[in-house]
Amino acid sequence: MSAQIFIFDTTLRDGTQGEGISLSADDKLKIAQKLDALGVHYIEGGNPGSNNKDIEFFKRVKTMKLNAKITAFGSTRRKNSVAEHDASLLRIIESGVPAATLVGKAWDFHVHTALQTTLEENLAMIFDSFALLKHHGMEAMYDAEHFFDGYKNNPEYALAALRKAQEGGADWLVLCDTNGGTMPNEIHEIVSRVKEELNTPIGIHTHNDCELAVANSLAAVQAGARQVQGTMNGYGERCGNANLCSIIPNLQLKLAYSCLQDDRLRLLTGTARYVSEIANVHMPVGQAFVGNAAFAHKGGIHVSAIMKDAKTYEHIEPELVGNKQRILVSELAGQSNIISKATELGLDITSNNEKTKLIMEQIKDLEHQGYQFEGADASLELLLRDAFTDVVQIFKVESFKIHMEKSNASMICEAIVKINVGGQIVLTAAEGNGPVNALDNAMRKALVQFFPRIEQIHLSDYKVRVIDEKDATAAKVRVLVESTGLDNTWSTVGVSSNVIEASWEALLDSIRYALLHMSKTTGDGTESEFVERLGLVNH
Amino acid sequence: MSAQIFIFDTTLRDGTQGEGISLSADDKLKIAQKLDALGVHYIEGGNPGSNNKDIEFFKRVKTMKLNAKITAFGSTRRKNSVAEHDASLLRIIESGVPAATLVGKAWDFHVHTALQTTLEENLAMIFDSFALLKHHGMEAMYDAEHFFDGYKNNPEYALAALRKAQEGGADWLVLCDTNGGTMPNEIHEIVSRVKEELNTPIGIHTHNDCELAVANSLAAVQAGARQVQGTMNGYGERCGNANLCSIIPNLQLKLAYSCLQDDRLRLLTGTARYVSEIANVHMPVGQAFVGNAAFAHKGGIHVSAIMKDAKTYEHIEPELVGNKQRILVSELAGQSNIISKATELGLDITSNNEKTKLIMEQIKDLEHQGYQFEGADASLELLLRDAFTDVVQIFKVESFKIHMEKSNASMICEAIVKINVGGQIVLTAAEGNGPVNALDNAMRKALVQFFPRIEQIHLSDYKVRVIDEKDATAAKVRVLVESTGLDNTWSTVGVSSNVIEASWEALLDSIRYALLHMSKTTGDGTESEFVERLGLVNH
Repeated sequence: MSAQIFIFDTTLRDGTQGEGISLSADDKLKIAQKLDALGVHYIEGGNPGSNNKDIEFFKRVKTMKLNAKITAFGSTRRKNSVAEHDASLLRIIESGVPAATLVGKAWDFHVHTALQTTLEENLAMIFDSFALLKHHGMEAMYDAEHFFDGYKNNPEYALAALRKAQEGGADWLVLCDTNGGTMPNEIHEIVSRVKEELNTPIGIHTHNDCELAVANSLAAVQAGARQVQGTMNGYGERCGNANLCSIIPNLQLKLAYSCLQDDRLRLLTGTARYVSEIANVHMPVGQAFVGNAAFAHKGGIHVSAIMKDAKTYEHIEPELVGNKQRILVSELAGQSNIISKATELGLDITSNNEKTKLIMEQIKDLEHQGYQFEGADASLELLLRDAFTDVVQIFKVESFKIHMEKSNASMICEAIVKINVGGQIVLTAAEGNGPVNALDNAMRKALVQFFPRIEQIHLSDYKVRVIDEKDATAAKVRVLVESTGLDNTWSTVGVSSNVIEASWEALLDSIRYALLHMSKTTGDGTESEFVERLGLVNH
Repeated sequence: MSAQIFIFDTTLRDGTQGEGISLSADDKLKIAQKLDALGVHYIEGGNPGSNNKDIEFFKRVKTMKLNAKITAFGSTRRKNSVAEHDASLLRIIESGVPAATLVGKAWDFHVHTALQTTLEENLAMIFDSFALLKHHGMEAMYDAEHFFDGYKNNPEYALAALRKAQEGGADWLVLCDTNGGTMPNEIHEIVSRVKEELNTPIGIHTHNDCELAVANSLAAVQAGARQVQGTMNGYGERCGNANLCSIIPNLQLKLAYSCLQDDRLRLLTGTARYVSEIANVHMPVGQAFVGNAAFAHKGGIHVSAIMKDAKTYEHIEPELVGNKQRILVSELAGQSNIISKATELGLDITSNNEKTKLIMEQIKDLEHQGYQFEGADASLELLLRDAFTDVVQIFKVESFKIHMEKSNASMICEAIVKINVGGQIVLTAAEGNGPVNALDNAMRKALVQFFPRIEQIHLSDYKVRVIDEKDATAAKVRVLVESTGLDNTWSTVGVSSNVIEASWEALLDSIRYALLHMSKTTGDGTESEFVERLGLVNH
């Protein structure tokens, strides 16, 4: 009964225009997978005609089995040329994607000033380019750049640009508020007019320069638009693009449109936070729907009302978008997540009420210190196993030292580590190209003689995030380490105001996790025999 | 001709409900002065019945000569009591402010669930409280809590609450979207109905839980509201209050309402940043109108169009709100970005074609190594100045050493730095809670004896980003440092596979930049005299 709205995510293209946002091809592939799991309809990957990173993305994404349509981005053909020979259009076609978006001018002022061509030539550029894409059987979307500014200046020309795209065969006419300066009432009025004039489905693409991108997207949908283009967390140039993390729940929970399948909406908070981690951009605590404080209650009156009925100060149930209520005076967060995680690990936690309480307290305390277990499953598993089973530490680091010396171009970095493995003390030293690398090398050197299979483990990702950035070089940092090997990938976390100590914690957890899982594999594992011989693991 | 909209700032009251925001009485007084200079009409200082901090504020603010009306906040009288004896109402009257805002229930559900009284008693509470304030000659505003939720549930009761306040003599009926869950079209419709039903001027108070607080405030004004309540930078509980920094320019520049005097609007960016500094909350670079990236251009095509006419990609002139255009230099951008940056710095680069080519190559090479100058204006400026002018290094770091030792719970971290200032060698040592902090401390200790004003500079932000994360602990990291002081904020960058070395580079650039700008200030600067005496700066 409710109208279907198609969600077009351009985090990987327009989102990377945001200041300080830079994504590798790997990052983009990871994000694409998450967006696909969330259930967006289109994922714009980039511009296959522009750089090697995007070319690599389009090549590799084909091997992934995604439900979302991967789309490529480009411009209408160059002026005074032939679409069939346009290198950039040809790259899009060759990239093998099922759909593409072409941006083209719709504002006469831009045709004259930026493009420096005639109004007629711009219309021809639009027609030719869409005709070419349609000839190659692609789904084709027209991003009508500056459509609203153009319409306000010269409505007939702006509509003529849309008509040319429609004549060329465009499947969607996406009206762009490129400069982000249009008011919601204008958006509603202009989209309504377009809907009267043209038959092709309409999309909306807004920017947040007036802090109105979400409202403008909603106004367009209410006037008849059926596709919304935006980015996760509103990343994008200047003040950002329209934030899909707010638009989707507003459309679905408030205005009764269909966007995602209901059960997918619960993935929203997790997806938003994942993207923020990968992009290494701090998510504002107060971000609508998905922020850590979006359902946090501080005021005493608010809290006591919330205890009576959450509806008193919550506009939706936070669980609908995968977020949770937090009471800032006495945090009760995340119990259900932890219980479900423990159950998943086969730990009998319901019958251990005292232990459950203790581990909840410990996790709450760690999160307060800056730990985040959403991106560090292995560290969370170790915490839970430590609490609910009788795992004994397989090894213990007695101490470590770092020495670094720099003068002119030369630099030395050394680490000395003292490790205790089942009562046997090992002292090793190693160099590295930085202190963390030296430490990592020294620790592996010490352990590999006991656990040769450690050589098969490598660190596949390393992230540093500053918490409380205002404390500058004395600020705490959170280090996330991803390790790969033994047919598995796992992530661990460390927090300290000392980046080396935080890295060290995460490295330690990574190796502990690996040894724990080695000890459980049967057969040829000399490590597991060693571990059993020492009686180090009792379960 | 254009309608006057009254701006009611509640940064000092509702804004302090935001997570992590805490203002001393001193902070509040400083902010009140800035808000008054900006020209807002009402400044809500706090609740004189609630705590000593607010009592001190109201006492001291009376001695300041402000044009804005200082207002106090409280609730309607307690249930089953007498307004004349209500301690909290009496405190408001005693505080001596000319105006006050009382919050009172307008949602029947809240009367039953939170207040736990009858609908009639709530109406009596409203009437009695306003009658008392008016009896004492105060301007009185009714913050109708949850008005929109209440109206949707029981329109007649919500309107009855407003009528009671009007009968009690309230000067303003402020409709609150307390939970932030209402859509703009609903706001427009409900405010229009209220305007038909009642004669008292209407205000609007919204929250940002759906990322719609700005749009909702505009919709209310378009439906007839004449007072807007909000906070600077949108601070407030959960997702924040309506952001006045966006609402004011939208009303004034886009919708032709009068809010501030025209020349005051230019103070907006400065005021917003000042409040963010005092509140110690990092301002998002992409914040609309006032953010550092609000008029920053990254994409090459955008930049080349901006050079032709700024209107191509700017919805307003940034100067209207006291902000400025920035051209970001990045991998996505062409040479035009660098040339315009150099021109902005007043460097004569067109006549130095050979130098221009060289610096382009150098920047390209550095970006390839992982440097990113879009977030590091100061480092870019130093590079350009080094290439195009004859700046001499004011100081040189001969060497540094780091020693770190960890065993059990104890940890030591020390740095030794050897610096050459104009031929004079200084050796200093310092501790820190991490290696970078120790290094920072040692370097400042060495330089402060030559440049005392370095004490006025502090690092306001520190970011670490791992590049090529696949190389794990041997990966390169990029460090971005933001420094504040000398009426300025600047950012610098360092890259290395050693996080300490990268931090060191960024710290070095930060201090070089500060000294360069100190040396250009005339007058009392002992550093500039020192620098000139040594002949260290030749331009």
